Amino acid sequence: MRATSALSQFDAAQSARPRRLVILGATGSVGRTTRSVILNSPEKFDVEAVAGGQDVEALAQTAIALRARRAVIADAAGYQALRAALAGTSIIVSAGTEAMCEAAALPSDMVIGAIAGTAGVRPTYAAVAAGRNVALANKECLVCAGGPFMRAVQRSGGQLLPMDSEHNAIFQALGGAHPDTIERMILTASGGPFRTWSNEAIANATPEQALAHPNWLMGPKVTIDSAGLMNKGLEVIEAHFLFGVDAGRLDVLVHPQSIVHGLISFADGAIIAGLAHPDMAVPIAHCLGYPDRLSTQARRLDLAEIGTLTFERPDSARFPALGVAMDALRHGEGLPTVLNAANEVAVDLFLQRRIGFQEIARIVAKTCEQAIADGSAREAQSIDEALAVDHVSRERCRTLLA
Amino acid sequence: MRATSALSQFDAAQSARPRRLVILGATGSVGRTTRSVILNSPEKFDVEAVAGGQDVEALAQTAIALRARRAVIADAAGYQALRAALAGTSIIVSAGTEAMCEAAALPSDMVIGAIAGTAGVRPTYAAVAAGRNVALANKECLVCAGGPFMRAVQRSGGQLLPMDSEHNAIFQALGGAHPDTIERMILTASGGPFRTWSNEAIANATPEQALAHPNWLMGPKVTIDSAGLMNKGLEVIEAHFLFGVDAGRLDVLVHPQSIVHGLISFADGAIIAGLAHPDMAVPIAHCLGYPDRLSTQARRLDLAEIGTLTFERPDSARFPALGVAMDALRHGEGLPTVLNAANEVAVDLFLQRRIGFQEIARIVAKTCEQAIADGSAREAQSIDEALAVDHVSRERCRTLLA
Repeated sequence: MRATSALSQFDAAQSARPRRLVILGATGSVGRTTRSVILNSPEKFDVEAVAGGQDVEALAQTAIALRARRAVIADAAGYQALRAALAGTSIIVSAGTEAMCEAAALPSDMVIGAIAGTAGVRPTYAAVAAGRNVALANKECLVCAGGPFMRAVQRSGGQLLPMDSEHNAIFQALGGAHPDTIERMILTASGGPFRTWSNEAIANATPEQALAHPNWLMGPKVTIDSAGLMNKGLEVIEAHFLFGVDAGRLDVLVHPQSIVHGLISFADGAIIAGLAHPDMAVPIAHCLGYPDRLSTQARRLDLAEIGTLTFERPDSARFPALGVAMDALRHGEGLPTVLNAANEVAVDLFLQRRIGFQEIARIVAKTCEQAIADGSAREAQSIDEALAVDHVSRERCRTLLA
Repeated sequence: MRATSALSQFDAAQSARPRRLVILGATGSVGRTTRSVILNSPEKFDVEAVAGGQDVEALAQTAIALRARRAVIADAAGYQALRAALAGTSIIVSAGTEAMCEAAALPSDMVIGAIAGTAGVRPTYAAVAAGRNVALANKECLVCAGGPFMRAVQRSGGQLLPMDSEHNAIFQALGGAHPDTIERMILTASGGPFRTWSNEAIANATPEQALAHPNWLMGPKVTIDSAGLMNKGLEVIEAHFLFGVDAGRLDVLVHPQSIVHGLISFADGAIIAGLAHPDMAVPIAHCLGYPDRLSTQARRLDLAEIGTLTFERPDSARFPALGVAMDALRHGEGLPTVLNAANEVAVDLFLQRRIGFQEIARIVAKTCEQAIADGSAREAQSIDEALAVDHVSRERCRTLLA
């Protein structure tokens, strides 16, 4: 039940009626783009539920705009405000993590898993465990809990569609080919704002400088991750779980223009690549329409206008985070969970100006080493175990930094 | 029965035993590369017949190297020499166009259609009419006789696999998607040796200069065609028939590095592209292994090593041939046949230094105009009719030049 066998689940009968959606993370960056893609072809969708974290007003607006049947706010404190905002509509309101997991498991054709961070693991897992088809934009489900998450996908028979631009490009490039036929799977990285900076300059970078991503508009956590290539490391781990491809066949290429997002090469020397402008509307529309194609307003790619595409190898000296993540993938067991947890803590401290930029990778590597040394980075047998390792790793990382 | 529905014909049972091949054009450029790809995985193939044009010695060597059951020489005068060269072997020898057509129709799993030029039309048609699966490297089957040829494919249920690098890249990029979902189909052109030349310099170019292709090693006719972009025009016509995509959705992009060979863009803004080093072994191996992948010695593509890929629009002022071909495709009916025939005559005269390089496109356009004016460019109902239009057009072109 890898990401490549999804076609079978979306048959012609299903595409004849509107596709019933549940949108988890409806008010975040991916959620907002999902909304505009849906509103471009409203007759094709029927929104069962929208769920958001804390932004009551945005959630209420989205629920109304998408004519959703339910709206769920994860922050229980927002319940009354959401009710008030939706008074006079027939939209059913609920609140809290449990309500979010229930919404995820509602009968639907597709769940959009767009909650940012580790908060997304339980609700997205609930969708997968209920056998729902999930378009996945949340990295943590796979990086923090890849083993249990993918086993739940296999058990329940739901399908995963990758919604991250790189994984979605690779999924499209695969075109139904079995991942075993792949010789190399390559994810591109823009190289971020520090691509041409010296090691010293990167060490002294401010949060504002790290947040100035040249190509992509994303949330702060993923933008900081991008600046140090940790984001690409997390995506390589994600690709490993999504496509069942081992670390030895996974590679990263720096491509400053962010036009080619992912490539696969085969044993006969052929490479198939997925391209698009750096615009999340493209992979979102691909998932929402799959296996058909939606028509979008996304700017069309004109390579003659762009003129030049460049590629270079990632510099492991200036961007050590990628190597730290690859090491965690090669080690396996619970180490990706540890890596992910420590990284969230370290990025947060960097944003608070309490550590320098290059300390992020250093402290993540140190947390990983300690977890290996004391045997605490075990393979998680369940989501609960993975989240427990996540919790312990955050504490350890904070202790190391104190 | 477009090129995209081929998967169904190549089932698992078939791939368990060696694939039985007939190779038409075994001694030409594509034929020689086919031979080396086969000899890289000899246990996977069983060569029923090899057929060549005139080169008796090369054909005999190929038949022995591939352990072919039969060898067919198109030039009947070569019969005795071929018999002599294969004396002492059990290889069955025959000669002449009829023998070639018989070999094409022999029971097999795949016919490699690699005869160069219009000489390839009848034998390749014989394979298609007999319901054989054909890996097609011959342009003329589609440019000269696209209508009757594709109707024969549909009638007989055989499958076409595109073996030209651009069409093969597009076929791979399609990954089974229906061509109706395509917004644009883009073939790349290297731009040839005159890409940066002035109009005056191109007009005075010698055959030697036109034959110095920067990236591809090919026969003289196709190399001259490449220098003026007529080759890309013929390939656009080929793509139209292969994939059933109309002229309005077909486009050409100049890409001097010849790494990206073909691209398809979809209504959601996504583009899928096929890449490889400019090495015919890649598309040949793809066809020979399809739907599995053969392992080849082909140099692997390292985009970081290549560094830069550039793209530009074709310049219709300096390279008018592309526009002449696109006009022929848009006009339809028998005009691609006229274009192809006139072009063969004109290229031949250029190689004989009897006309200048820019006169090729001019005389081809003029032959097309006359055919439209007198109504002789009718849609061919059969291969015979197409070849009759071809014959008349060659005469007309020679007359225009006299």
